[in-house]
Amino acid sequence: MGRAVYAGDIKQAGMLHAKVLRSPYPHARIVRIDTAAARALRGVKLVLTGEDTPSRLWGTHRKEQRILAAGVVRHVGEEVAAVVAVDEETARDALDLIRVEYEELPAIFSPDAALADGAAELHPGTRNIAHEMHIERGDVEAGFARAAVVYEATYDMHSQYPGYLEPMATVAAQDGNGRLTVWASTQSVFLARARLAEALDRPVSTIRVIQAVTGGGFGAKIVEESNSLIAALLATRLDRPVRLVNNRLEDFLGARSSVPARVWLKMGLDAQGMIVAKDVNIVAECGAYAGLAGDVMHVTAMRSDNMHRVENVRSNAVLAYTNNPPRGAFRGFGGQQMQFPLNSHLTMLAEMLGMDPIEVHKRNAIRSGDTSVHGWKIGSSGLVECLEQTREAIQWDARRADASRRTGTRRRGLGIAAAMHVSGNRTLGNWDGSTIVLKVNEDGRVMLLTSECDMGQGANTMLSQICAQELGIALSHVTVSAPDTDVAPFCLGSLASRVTIISGNAVMRAAREAKQKLLAVAAGKLGVPQDELDLIDGVIRARHDDTTRATLAEIARLHIFRHGGEGLMVRATYDAPTVMHDANYYGNIAPAYSFAAQAVEVEVDTVTGQITLIDSFVSDDCGKAINPLAVHGQTHGATVQAIGWTLYEHVQVEDGRILNGNFADYTMPTADAVPALRTDVVESVEPNGPYGAKGASETAILPGAAAIANAVYDAIGVRIASLPITPEKVLAALRERKENEARHA
Amino acid sequence: MGRAVYAGDIKQAGMLHAKVLRSPYPHARIVRIDTAAARALRGVKLVLTGEDTPSRLWGTHRKEQRILAAGVVRHVGEEVAAVVAVDEETARDALDLIRVEYEELPAIFSPDAALADGAAELHPGTRNIAHEMHIERGDVEAGFARAAVVYEATYDMHSQYPGYLEPMATVAAQDGNGRLTVWASTQSVFLARARLAEALDRPVSTIRVIQAVTGGGFGAKIVEESNSLIAALLATRLDRPVRLVNNRLEDFLGARSSVPARVWLKMGLDAQGMIVAKDVNIVAECGAYAGLAGDVMHVTAMRSDNMHRVENVRSNAVLAYTNNPPRGAFRGFGGQQMQFPLNSHLTMLAEMLGMDPIEVHKRNAIRSGDTSVHGWKIGSSGLVECLEQTREAIQWDARRADASRRTGTRRRGLGIAAAMHVSGNRTLGNWDGSTIVLKVNEDGRVMLLTSECDMGQGANTMLSQICAQELGIALSHVTVSAPDTDVAPFCLGSLASRVTIISGNAVMRAAREAKQKLLAVAAGKLGVPQDELDLIDGVIRARHDDTTRATLAEIARLHIFRHGGEGLMVRATYDAPTVMHDANYYGNIAPAYSFAAQAVEVEVDTVTGQITLIDSFVSDDCGKAINPLAVHGQTHGATVQAIGWTLYEHVQVEDGRILNGNFADYTMPTADAVPALRTDVVESVEPNGPYGAKGASETAILPGAAAIANAVYDAIGVRIASLPITPEKVLAALRERKENEARHA
Repeated sequence: MGRAVYAGDIKQAGMLHAKVLRSPYPHARIVRIDTAAARALRGVKLVLTGEDTPSRLWGTHRKEQRILAAGVVRHVGEEVAAVVAVDEETARDALDLIRVEYEELPAIFSPDAALADGAAELHPGTRNIAHEMHIERGDVEAGFARAAVVYEATYDMHSQYPGYLEPMATVAAQDGNGRLTVWASTQSVFLARARLAEALDRPVSTIRVIQAVTGGGFGAKIVEESNSLIAALLATRLDRPVRLVNNRLEDFLGARSSVPARVWLKMGLDAQGMIVAKDVNIVAECGAYAGLAGDVMHVTAMRSDNMHRVENVRSNAVLAYTNNPPRGAFRGFGGQQMQFPLNSHLTMLAEMLGMDPIEVHKRNAIRSGDTSVHGWKIGSSGLVECLEQTREAIQWDARRADASRRTGTRRRGLGIAAAMHVSGNRTLGNWDGSTIVLKVNEDGRVMLLTSECDMGQGANTMLSQICAQELGIALSHVTVSAPDTDVAPFCLGSLASRVTIISGNAVMRAAREAKQKLLAVAAGKLGVPQDELDLIDGVIRARHDDTTRATLAEIARLHIFRHGGEGLMVRATYDAPTVMHDANYYGNIAPAYSFAAQAVEVEVDTVTGQITLIDSFVSDDCGKAINPLAVHGQTHGATVQAIGWTLYEHVQVEDGRILNGNFADYTMPTADAVPALRTDVVESVEPNGPYGAKGASETAILPGAAAIANAVYDAIGVRIASLPITPEKVLAALRERKENEARHA
Repeated sequence: MGRAVYAGDIKQAGMLHAKVLRSPYPHARIVRIDTAAARALRGVKLVLTGEDTPSRLWGTHRKEQRILAAGVVRHVGEEVAAVVAVDEETARDALDLIRVEYEELPAIFSPDAALADGAAELHPGTRNIAHEMHIERGDVEAGFARAAVVYEATYDMHSQYPGYLEPMATVAAQDGNGRLTVWASTQSVFLARARLAEALDRPVSTIRVIQAVTGGGFGAKIVEESNSLIAALLATRLDRPVRLVNNRLEDFLGARSSVPARVWLKMGLDAQGMIVAKDVNIVAECGAYAGLAGDVMHVTAMRSDNMHRVENVRSNAVLAYTNNPPRGAFRGFGGQQMQFPLNSHLTMLAEMLGMDPIEVHKRNAIRSGDTSVHGWKIGSSGLVECLEQTREAIQWDARRADASRRTGTRRRGLGIAAAMHVSGNRTLGNWDGSTIVLKVNEDGRVMLLTSECDMGQGANTMLSQICAQELGIALSHVTVSAPDTDVAPFCLGSLASRVTIISGNAVMRAAREAKQKLLAVAAGKLGVPQDELDLIDGVIRARHDDTTRATLAEIARLHIFRHGGEGLMVRATYDAPTVMHDANYYGNIAPAYSFAAQAVEVEVDTVTGQITLIDSFVSDDCGKAINPLAVHGQTHGATVQAIGWTLYEHVQVEDGRILNGNFADYTMPTADAVPALRTDVVESVEPNGPYGAKGASETAILPGAAAIANAVYDAIGVRIASLPITPEKVLAALRERKENEARHA
């Protein structure tokens, strides 16, 4: 309908418009900035540089950045100055009038260079290491010793731009009492508030963050973007509201794309196909600032271990600073950076054993009731069922058996991959909870207050469904308010696929408590014991006498208008029964784990190298699918995003500069690149989940790359270990194989 | 600072502007309306008439009105059509293009005409009676039989325009989901929501009302204005926001001024000055629609009885419909319409007995612990102390004794009056409660959620003070959110001087509960029993070991980030320990009652009739004055408003038309008409009040008129019983007395 009000659509009385000047250099000292001409431009209200920002540094873990760079810029696109003017055009013109004198510094563009002995340090004292991990369990060497087959390879994975429809946008305004209100496109209003407080060096209570309608986040709108910080900073210096909207070019520069990683993986399987050892080395890159990239790498280093009954695993991981643009959180949160290697490996190892890779997956698959190698308690696992559902849906056995498909110049192949994801994560601060406030209005309809954020994934509908189900009212009678730090309860926000299980449980508790309160009032009015009353379709009635009844609206009004009454308002909190992992990364961090399997069929044109997806089926074990339509929609989106990462999307950076930061050159898959997507759910019953539900569909982005790579391998026999799998790489691999075959012939 | 955002200052994307066409006739049938030319005007987006409004009628008690008149108009200024256009100018131009054909009907302009036998009925079946009451207690005739003195007179009281700085204004917008948001200047968001739901004939839950910064209400912004209804109706028919702001002329037509009344009062006192009988006939006028005028008359009919230890009282009261503009709630809520007669009477009767009127007041004054003739339980009465404080402050005895003041052409006189008011009122619906939600943020600062409305009277500061006091934090660390029906708890709003005692108790309870929750967490962290911890200046410390301590911010964070944690959020409700009055109007309706006394000195120019206020002192028994500065400010405002009613302000209506509906002709007192106002408080300790507090300063508007009239009588010996006391009336009274004296000489 075009009537949603995104942050960029907000109008405020006297609102001004901002634009940001960014560094053209990957590494440079700012010698001086002359803003006089910009400030003199008619219509310009304010020009700020790094010297005008609070000196306190902000950052998710490492405190590394000021809101605008001061002294040094460390990547192309880093924010150097900001202008506020009466309109965007004037602000943009003013940017051209700012004279910045830079002194270029030597720059580092690869982890190898960053980690080389004697490399200059981007951040003093770090040796260019933003984060590193070492995990070892069992006896990896002994495992390899009893392996029947061992395979090792190195995988290269690139950075993917989040590609949401709505670039980052903020409107910020400070009132006469000095309180700052920020309307932002965000996945978490309370994390946004904490970050604004840190960056602006002021108490959280002086800041109000309201989520505007948000057009996608995909991780990039959790806590790493600078847009809201800059708008807020500018607003604090003016008595008028400030609007700052990234255009697409600016968003490519300002948003954090996913973390690129190079993974060396060595795995051994015994003769029965059981994984006996896994050894991993990861070199990931965060670019100029660490942000959440360390957490992402943490996931890459260990999460996939928990989907199999493995005992002997080792991970070494290091996150390097470079002068490339900073990278960060992305849907899947590092899972895909290991599922691509792992699932590629398992197909290769299965082949070496002469086994079906699905069979290998199934044999190793973790089951409900297991505790994984890292201490994760698997309350429900539908992994085996996902694999079987996928096998059947994709006609795995029949199609694989048809060798005619792998002949000619347009060869077809099938590939399979599996994955797991968390539903929630305690490691955000020893709390993985959510609070819901449920209000019953005088008409018996319900308002839910939460500050989990719906970015389009359907969280609000899911919460409304649970509430309506518990209270016996129509779905349309439940409204979810927009997250607002001033009035909503504290929540962590939409990340780690946590909202369905965490907030879903909270709303279930709130609704049940509200129902009991309503029934208690009705019992008094109707003279019927509370436990003999039912609440169905908005009417409370005696179970044994249908004529004794009152409408929910009557009772809701009576809840107020009586001695000792009040508007019915219930607060309920759910905190996951989990633990922080210990110093050795051991411990059950999530209340549930989701699983998925995906199979694809591809057609590879051996003349052009072009890969065409013919078919795709994703089976998602999300527990009870509370809103199947939304789950399928999310799964489709995740699948397409995985296709994009695997075949098309690639943030190309050269000498620290993004070469393709626009939708003409950064080629996200369009409809013609996507087959009719198929998906289904496996509804394992999660004991911790509301109605058995778990997080849905973040898992679904994880298997795509490996499924496609495995299908390409099946089609043409070449293993591409470097993403994206471009026609050039296919042709080069085919050429190389031909040369090898010629050499050996 | 000019930075408060009133409703009229709100900007919304795509916002349109509305204007209202009003009836030029006091009573007419609408034959037809031709809107074609208006709709054809470039820039006009919508034109609505009564036929386009929901057929459901709205009204506080009597359901009498559609949002726009359909079929019949009953007063000049009644809303007939509304236009939405791209700007206000275009909307105004479009009004001129609407052709309305009226057929004039006979009109009624006075209660006498309305109540005459055979009068045509404005509303069929009503006999033009909107409300009537009869109350009788004790034996009035027996009382008069033992009276030493009896005095009877008739008083005429006119209508006063609320005169707030901010005329009514609304912005309304309906979103793509069909939810309507209304930003309004209002005293009660939940009553506004209920009224919008009724008038728009839709469930309350489909409507969100947010209080914009409100520039005064004085009763007229409780539930009777049409501005918000019209803006909301228009918004529901458009996919764009609509702004409707009354200019001052429109506000005179659209807002309900106070209820005019004619009161015949007969009272008898015994030789000791004790009131032995009181008999009252009231004829009040609501104009074309009843609104709250019946409740106002109810107060006029009985409230003042409760300030004295009287036994024999009788009231007959009738509220008449006329074709004058509708009248309604006004600060004091009908109290002044009886305090003016009563206090005028008591001065006359005291004189007849040769007693000091202050002494008469004191002898009759109700005391703490009394139950009044109507069953009101007086938990605290500082009435005697108010009278004594006033006597001293105004130098009553010395100035009265100085006969030289009453000579020459500029004669001075002193007058006294006393009054009482409720603090809260259960009769709004058998609930007189308030709910507060208190959130403690991660920095240890507090957010209060309430939907009581601050219209400038300082309610938010009062609530913040109680919260800060209880929690041991700085006042600046407490923020009160703007009332918003979607997110705030249900409250009745700012009326009946209820917020300090009702909501003040709620916030005290919430803060005490929050404190205990914080201390419990701190006890766990510090290893000290909870009851050995103090919370002072934002730090929790062991009472016996000052080094064992934690900041409030640390504990607030720990309240979240732990197993089973949550953001600290407390809900507390206070419902007054009162009852609905019975069918005979008997019962304790309020948790507390405030008292006041006022003395003024006037100078009357016997040549010009001009009255000049020389001095004014108001003593307000508001219980504990939580914010003395705010109490004094409110008292000053009330005093000036009473001066206006008594001497200057008069909504002049002729043939149903307001003659002086603008600030040039409607003369509110300016600074040169007001002496240096003096005021003090009597802090009687109210058992039901937070820290002993009661409602402050609505009481203070009540004694002004009588105090001035009594002072005029003292100065020149003429009793003016018709308000306002204009120079013309003074001169006429002096002339009449002279003629009488000449006749008798």
